[in-house]
Amino acid sequence: MPFAPSGLITLMTDFGTADPFAGIVSGRILSRSPGARIIDLGHGMPMGRPDLAGFWLGRAWRDFPVGTLHLAVVDPGVGTARRVLLALAEDRLLLAPDNGLLAEALRDCRTARYFAMTANLPERLGLTEISQTFHGRDLFAPLAAALATGALAPEDFGPPTTPADPTPLPTPTRDAEGIGGEILLADHFGNLFTNIGAPLVAACRQPWAIVGTHSLAVRNTYADVPPGTPLALVNAFGVLELAINGASAATVLELAPGTRIRLVDGLAA
Amino acid sequence: MPFAPSGLITLMTDFGTADPFAGIVSGRILSRSPGARIIDLGHGMPMGRPDLAGFWLGRAWRDFPVGTLHLAVVDPGVGTARRVLLALAEDRLLLAPDNGLLAEALRDCRTARYFAMTANLPERLGLTEISQTFHGRDLFAPLAAALATGALAPEDFGPPTTPADPTPLPTPTRDAEGIGGEILLADHFGNLFTNIGAPLVAACRQPWAIVGTHSLAVRNTYADVPPGTPLALVNAFGVLELAINGASAATVLELAPGTRIRLVDGLAA
Amino acid sequence: MPFAPSGLITLMTDFGTADPFAGIVSGRILSRSPGARIIDLGHGMPMGRPDLAGFWLGRAWRDFPVGTLHLAVVDPGVGTARRVLLALAEDRLLLAPDNGLLAEALRDCRTARYFAMTANLPERLGLTEISQTFHGRDLFAPLAAALATGALAPEDFGPPTTPADPTPLPTPTRDAEGIGGEILLADHFGNLFTNIGAPLVAACRQPWAIVGTHSLAVRNTYADVPPGTPLALVNAFGVLELAINGASAATVLELAPGTRIRLVDGLAA
Repeated sequence: MPFAPSGLITLMTDFGTADPFAGIVSGRILSRSPGARIIDLGHGMPMGRPDLAGFWLGRAWRDFPVGTLHLAVVDPGVGTARRVLLALAEDRLLLAPDNGLLAEALRDCRTARYFAMTANLPERLGLTEISQTFHGRDLFAPLAAALATGALAPEDFGPPTTPADPTPLPTPTRDAEGIGGEILLADHFGNLFTNIGAPLVAACRQPWAIVGTHSLAVRNTYADVPPGTPLALVNAFGVLELAINGASAATVLELAPGTRIRLVDGLAA
Repeated sequence: MPFAPSGLITLMTDFGTADPFAGIVSGRILSRSPGARIIDLGHGMPMGRPDLAGFWLGRAWRDFPVGTLHLAVVDPGVGTARRVLLALAEDRLLLAPDNGLLAEALRDCRTARYFAMTANLPERLGLTEISQTFHGRDLFAPLAAALATGALAPEDFGPPTTPADPTPLPTPTRDAEGIGGEILLADHFGNLFTNIGAPLVAACRQPWAIVGTHSLAVRNTYADVPPGTPLALVNAFGVLELAINGASAATVLELAPGTRIRLVDGLAA
Repeated sequence: MPFAPSGLITLMTDFGTADPFAGIVSGRILSRSPGARIIDLGHGMPMGRPDLAGFWLGRAWRDFPVGTLHLAVVDPGVGTARRVLLALAEDRLLLAPDNGLLAEALRDCRTARYFAMTANLPERLGLTEISQTFHGRDLFAPLAAALATGALAPEDFGPPTTPADPTPLPTPTRDAEGIGGEILLADHFGNLFTNIGAPLVAACRQPWAIVGTHSLAVRNTYADVPPGTPLALVNAFGVLELAINGASAATVLELAPGTRIRLVDGLAA
C-alpha cells in the first residue's frame, strides 16, 4: 500500500527559537504546500549532534498519526556532499541529512525502508537557488512540502539505500559485576538519561544505579523519595534515568553527559 | 447548554522548549483528534510551580474563543495519587493536575464547575500504558483529545468536585500605613509583577510603590519616565508592576520574587 | 488587484517564550478570526530593538505565500503616540508599530505601499479596552484578525504614508583600502552577521574579511575549513558572515555586535 500523506509535518532542528530560522522553514513549506499543518517538535536539539537528535526523534516519531512527515535538520555537514535521506517507517516519513540522525532514530524499527535523494531531484522540483549554509530552508522545506502533498512519492525520491551511521550512541556493556553504561543527556528538568534500557533493569531483582559515590535504588517515580533526594527510575522513554525529586540532578549531582554509570543487582551476590 | 468544543487546544507546561516533550504531547493529541488545532500557550512556566502556572493561565484563558480547551501540565506530583481535574468555565474547558493550578487560574471566576476524573476513565479510553513520569503524554493528551472532539462530555469526565488549593498565592494585607504586598514573578523583560491588584491602586489618590529604598510613583506606561528610570504602573494583567523604562527591573534593582513591597497613598497623610 | 488574505498570520516579537504573551496574542487573533492559521516566526527578537527585528523580518517575509499577514511587535514605545503602520508589499501585509521596524524590513522593496492607522479605527472595531503596556494583545491582534479575514481592507486601515526610519542599520563605507562594515548580530550558532552585502563581496577577486587581528578568507561553507577554524562566507541571508566550523564565533573570537570589520581584495594591491 503506498504512503498516504496526512499533510501533517513536524519540525525538529538545532536552530533554537531566538532567530526566525524555524519559522522561515515553515514559510517555505507553506509556500509550496498551503494546506500543510506544521508542529514544532523542538528546535533546541544540541547543536551539531545528529546522534542526540536521532535519539529524541526515535522517542517521538511514533507518537504522531500515520501519514505524518517528520523533518529533522541537524546538519553540521551542510554544504558538503553528505546525502539527503528519506525513511518510510510504519506509514510515516522521516526526512533528514544522512548523517546518522535517522539511523539512530529508527534503530529499533526493523521494517523501515530508506531512500537516498536522486541528485537531480532538486532541479526537477524547480529548486534553482540553494544556499551553501541553509538547506533547511532551500532544500529540506520544499522536499517536505512535495512529500506531504503527495506530489512526490517516497519511491520517486531516490534509490533504496541503507542509512549512514557514523556516530552511533554508545551501548551498554556487561561484565561479571553488572552492566556498564553512561549518561547520554540532561533534559530540561536536569534529569539524566542513560543508555541503559528498561529490559536490562527489569532483569535485575533489586536494581541499583551506581554513579561516582552515589548508590541509587531504582524507584517508580520521583515522589517515591523525599524532596531533594536522588533516585533512579526507568523513565517514560524506556531508559534508566538519574533524577532528584523536585530538583536538577545535573546541577546538584554535578553530572554531565558521558559520565559512566553502573547497574547492579542487589540480590545477585 | 452543553459544552461545544471548537477543536482548539492550548498547551501550557513547564517542559521548556529544548526537549521535544511538548511536541510529543501535541502528537498524541493529534493521533486521537486529527482535526485538533493546537496553540502553544507557553512551555516556560517555572518548574514545579502550579501556583504561578495558575496565575498565568488565569490571565490567558479568556483570551481564547469559547469552545477552547486549555491543557496545563505543571505536575510535580506526577505518578502520585493527585487527582486529575477538569473545569468548565464560561464555555471553555481547563484540564490540569488537581494541584492548585486551576484553583489559582479560576480564582476570579464564580461560575466555574469542576469535575474530578473517574478512576476508570483511562481504561474506558483504552489507555493501557501510562508511565509514572510523563502523564502529559500518556494521560492528559488523550483526555484532551477526547474532550476536544466531543467524544467525551465534561459531565462524563467524573463527579463534580471542588479544586485542591494547597498553595494559594499570597494576598495583600492592609494596615494603617497602606497596603503590604509582594513580588510574584519577573517576566521576560524583567518587569516585576506584584500581587497588588488594580482596585487597590485605584483607591489611592496619589499611589506610590515602596520597595526597599525606592519610592516609585505609579505611572501609566513605561515611556512616562526617562529611559533607565524605575517606575510603577498597573500593568496589562491588572496588577501593580515595578519596571524600568527600557531595562530589566529585576536585574537593575536586584529584586526577586518574594520581596515585600508597600502601596501608599501620598495624599492620605 | 485588491489584497486577498489567505488567513495565514505570522508572529514575530521580543516577548520571549517563557511567559504566555505570544500565546495570548494568538488567542485574541483566534477569538476574532477563528479560521486564522498562526505561525510563530520567532519571539526571541532582541528586546526593544525594532531595527534588528526589521532586519530579520526583511529576511523572512517573502518566504511565506502571498496572502500572508506578518505581525511584528517590538514596541518599546508602547503607550506613547507612536503610529501603527501597515505595509502592503508583493501581495503580503506587514503590520507593526511605526518605529523603524518596517522601514528596515522593506528597505529593498521598492513597491511597498504604507498606511498609517486612522485614529478612530480601534473604536470602529469595537476595541474599547486598550491597555497602556500590551498593544500586541489589545490592538495589534484584533487589527491582524480584521485584516486576515478580509473584514478590513488595507486601504481602509488609514491614509497612505511613509514609514518612520529613526534608527536605520549602519551601511558599509568605502575608502581606498576597501570596505568598512560592522557586526550586526550573533545568531543562535554564534555566527556573526555583518552589514556587508553579497554584491560587495562578489566585487572582490580575492575577498578577505579583517576583524581585529584575524584575516579570514571568504569561503563557500563551514566545512571548507577544518573544525574549530574561523572563516568568512556570504551566508544564506546575503550578508558577509564570520563563523567557526563547528563552534561559536561570537564566543571563541570574543566578538560582539558593533565591532568594526573590513572587507579587502587580496588581489587589489
